[in-house]
Amino acid sequence: MSESSTANLRTRLREIIFGTDTRPGRAFDIALLVVIVASVVNLMLVSVAAIESRFGPVLHALEWLFTILFSIEYAVRIYAARRRWAYIRSFYGIIDLLSVLPLYLALILPSAHYFVAVRALRVMRIFRVLKLVRYANDANVLTRSLRHAQRKMQIFLGVLALVTVILGALMYVVEGPTHGFTSIPRSMYWAVVTITTVGYGDIAPATPAGQAIAGIAIMLGYALLAVTGGIITAELTNEISNERQLRQCPHCERSGHEIDAHYCKFCGGHLDKYEEEDPPADKEQAADRDKLD
Amino acid sequence: MSESSTANLRTRLREIIFGTDTRPGRAFDIALLVVIVASVVNLMLVSVAAIESRFGPVLHALEWLFTILFSIEYAVRIYAARRRWAYIRSFYGIIDLLSVLPLYLALILPSAHYFVAVRALRVMRIFRVLKLVRYANDANVLTRSLRHAQRKMQIFLGVLALVTVILGALMYVVEGPTHGFTSIPRSMYWAVVTITTVGYGDIAPATPAGQAIAGIAIMLGYALLAVTGGIITAELTNEISNERQLRQCPHCERSGHEIDAHYCKFCGGHLDKYEEEDPPADKEQAADRDKLD
Amino acid sequence: MSESSTANLRTRLREIIFGTDTRPGRAFDIALLVVIVASVVNLMLVSVAAIESRFGPVLHALEWLFTILFSIEYAVRIYAARRRWAYIRSFYGIIDLLSVLPLYLALILPSAHYFVAVRALRVMRIFRVLKLVRYANDANVLTRSLRHAQRKMQIFLGVLALVTVILGALMYVVEGPTHGFTSIPRSMYWAVVTITTVGYGDIAPATPAGQAIAGIAIMLGYALLAVTGGIITAELTNEISNERQLRQCPHCERSGHEIDAHYCKFCGGHLDKYEEEDPPADKEQAADRDKLD
Amino acid sequence: MSESSTANLRTRLREIIFGTDTRPGRAFDIALLVVIVASVVNLMLVSVAAIESRFGPVLHALEWLFTILFSIEYAVRIYAARRRWAYIRSFYGIIDLLSVLPLYLALILPSAHYFVAVRALRVMRIFRVLKLVRYANDANVLTRSLRHAQRKMQIFLGVLALVTVILGALMYVVEGPTHGFTSIPRSMYWAVVTITTVGYGDIAPATPAGQAIAGIAIMLGYALLAVTGGIITAELTNEISNERQLRQCPHCERSGHEIDAHYCKFCGGHLDKYEEEDPPADKEQAADRDKLD
Repeated sequence: MSESSTANLRTRLREIIFGTDTRPGRAFDIALLVVIVASVVNLMLVSVAAIESRFGPVLHALEWLFTILFSIEYAVRIYAARRRWAYIRSFYGIIDLLSVLPLYLALILPSAHYFVAVRALRVMRIFRVLKLVRYANDANVLTRSLRHAQRKMQIFLGVLALVTVILGALMYVVEGPTHGFTSIPRSMYWAVVTITTVGYGDIAPATPAGQAIAGIAIMLGYALLAVTGGIITAELTNEISNERQLRQCPHCERSGHEIDAHYCKFCGGHLDKYEEEDPPADKEQAADRDKLD
Repeated sequence: MSESSTANLRTRLREIIFGTDTRPGRAFDIALLVVIVASVVNLMLVSVAAIESRFGPVLHALEWLFTILFSIEYAVRIYAARRRWAYIRSFYGIIDLLSVLPLYLALILPSAHYFVAVRALRVMRIFRVLKLVRYANDANVLTRSLRHAQRKMQIFLGVLALVTVILGALMYVVEGPTHGFTSIPRSMYWAVVTITTVGYGDIAPATPAGQAIAGIAIMLGYALLAVTGGIITAELTNEISNERQLRQCPHCERSGHEIDAHYCKFCGGHLDKYEEEDPPADKEQAADRDKLD
Repeated sequence: MSESSTANLRTRLREIIFGTDTRPGRAFDIALLVVIVASVVNLMLVSVAAIESRFGPVLHALEWLFTILFSIEYAVRIYAARRRWAYIRSFYGIIDLLSVLPLYLALILPSAHYFVAVRALRVMRIFRVLKLVRYANDANVLTRSLRHAQRKMQIFLGVLALVTVILGALMYVVEGPTHGFTSIPRSMYWAVVTITTVGYGDIAPATPAGQAIAGIAIMLGYALLAVTGGIITAELTNEISNERQLRQCPHCERSGHEIDAHYCKFCGGHLDKYEEEDPPADKEQAADRDKLD
Repeated sequence: MSESSTANLRTRLREIIFGTDTRPGRAFDIALLVVIVASVVNLMLVSVAAIESRFGPVLHALEWLFTILFSIEYAVRIYAARRRWAYIRSFYGIIDLLSVLPLYLALILPSAHYFVAVRALRVMRIFRVLKLVRYANDANVLTRSLRHAQRKMQIFLGVLALVTVILGALMYVVEGPTHGFTSIPRSMYWAVVTITTVGYGDIAPATPAGQAIAGIAIMLGYALLAVTGGIITAELTNEISNERQLRQCPHCERSGHEIDAHYCKFCGGHLDKYEEEDPPADKEQAADRDKLD
């Protein structure tokens, strides 16, 4: 096979596997989506004892079929990717590998049981397909917003962790081992379950003093987290509003554009100058390609 | 009966049943509201064993009475509707049918028990009456906003589902069948109950490792959902604000109008040009008519 | 006593009881606050069996003391009020009556036990004192916002009630009496406890089908309520922002004033023309007086 | 040692301990962070019986090591602080003392058990280090916002407390001692656990009347708190937006600056005139110094 025909094959495969504009590309995405969902459902069914005892062989054969399909897909993705190492080390590259590796490892290692959780990670592959097919805009906005809000989420987690440690230590001292608060870590588990308002009730304060302190601590923690959440929402609102106001069309100089808009909604010109040389049709795809291959 | 008198009857019935501006139309709505609430309360009372054993015959007779009333109403609605098929296939048309069908089917089919849930759907009929009578504006804004936020809600559900599958598989592996996590589906039920912070406690991690992992997972999931909720609120705030700013009166060119406003609050002119030929008085009703008959 | 001295006494009592600007008025408010808190604490202590058995006579004597004090206060309030009927029928007038009535009724009626809940309503009297003393601004904003958001809260409650009825009927059918869902009302109790994410776990789905349906219903309900809450927050944000933008100083014509501001923050002029004849010092109090006496 | 060399030593120590700009200052902060985290983890491990029985002596020795290290740090901080009393009485000064005092008191007092909760407070020291090292901006914004939202949080807590007292008294009357509602305080503990949606289920209404009333009360309380939270978020959003709009650069007169910005993002000039004489490099640190020493 000549070098150019190999290059052609790679380009074609890349369009089908990574792209969404062509008909075969779209068909591939839909087929992949079906296979991913089927493989996750299969994983669930295997874990149900009543189903596994009746349909075990069929389900395990299906699991192997899905794994081989994903393995082929993974190999083809590496082959077709423009920048192979970039793909392998990318977020979705690692997810793709983790979708197939556990079953192969289970052949060698005895305690394959633990890999079920790793295999369930393949459900995240759905997001890649969805991102390209349907939820492109909204999901991008959400992803961008989440990246934007990452430090705010860390602060939220920090406040949560702080409350957990202090409340956990407090209740360990007040209630003590006789009522289930056998250690600070276990008491902190109770604190997490309580502060997030999950409240299983497997551990709960039983003495009047413990109930009084827990009651006050829950109120304070609840109000603190509610207001912290409110502050984060308020700041996000203003940041998004600010970003929109700052985003100005370089052609007509009007602002107020959505964060994920590529073109000016007033004059239709490119909002980002550096993208102007790209053909508009496959820009999204191009951006994706830049990231993955 | 001449054709024109039939047309007159239909128009009159339509005004009473679908309209809200005339006195008989309003009286009909209030009567309907009372009957719907009574029929839902009746449904509840039948299900209470102590009440059913004492008042059973009366309650069942009432159920038949309500069903016959709703059947007559359904027939008249079809007769009076401008576009009959459109009404039958509309959301409220189907709800109207589902309100009466189960009892008739119970005469033929033996396992009528399951239709109770279907009959309870008639509670949704309340919303039609309310929409026309009192909460018109607010409910419309909410409906519009919900339609607006539909994809955001799907994203929220997507994040929820993703966390559920991964957390479910993880805890199935960590805790295992001995502590109630007997299968991935059951483990996912636990994950839903936990991540939504319902936390029944019928299944809860019991091993230190399970409690540690669950504690961390709950914190992460809680923070993720809180921040996702915050982002959605922030985006809705900006979209509503933006929509209001973009809505400009074609007459006085001032903006800042509520999303559900029909007339300019500064000059009183029509905000939407295409509606200008409609007589203002029964526009809402006209819009409703366009949808239903 | 001459008529004018009676009028003087009434005016003076009014200043002390309803006002907050004079020193005796402030002292009265603080004394009242202490007595209310003491009487509520007393109510709690009486209910604890271990405390009641030891200090019963003292606590009951105190309860009588507080009731007599409140009775005198109530009588003086009626005497001093400018418009007596308006005070008696006002929200706080009724709360004042309900604070003292139960104990007198307990002398006549045998089943006094149930009046404890009515007596606990006296805790709401704290809010009157607080409103006048310290949280004046914030509480007013909150009260106004709550009145503003009243219909939104009704919609929230409507969505909650709708989900409750449908989910309750559904789970009654799916789970049935053997797992605690003995009737639709009880099933609805479960639905409320679940949808508000309280989740006691006293009733919980036990069959795989019930858990699957409950899991999906919880996710949908949770997302629906989270997004509904987000929409309400978003609309409130825009309404508050809008109100502020619309509020224009009649003197310097600049806008952006807080909802509860009385004076322009730029030029110091009255924001509301109709209040201009009032002396500024006791305007808040005057507004209060207008409402109560 | 001459007076000036002492002053030099103090200045140098101050730079290392309170500052973050110099290399030794940064190294000190990171070392301190590691020691604090290690000491908190140590505290947790001591409380686990299985670990304590095996590694008890090592862990207790480590606890003494950490306490001595913190004691030295505390002494040096007092020595180096510019204004010593201000530091001792400051928030972090008290936390620093509470981190070391319990262990010394445990030597004298017999019931040292209760000091574990006090010792856990040292986890708050992490925040000082974090504030200076990494989360400076975001944490400051959060702290400022929280101070800003302090009264709103008090209102939230007030609404929570009001609902708790009334709901607690109501359910005490309705359910009574036979179903766990043995006293108003215990009933209020149930109300807190319910209204914050924690819902352990250790106490839950068992009678149909109690479940009906609790169901309605939970719905009302939930909607009230959700809408109160929404109002607070809405007001915070507008306040932050307003603050940003009001913040005007004194040099170029453009507004829209972040709340925690020190310099104009358009012309780079000082936003606050009174800070203009400060050298920009160590302003944050200077502000910190002003507060602590």
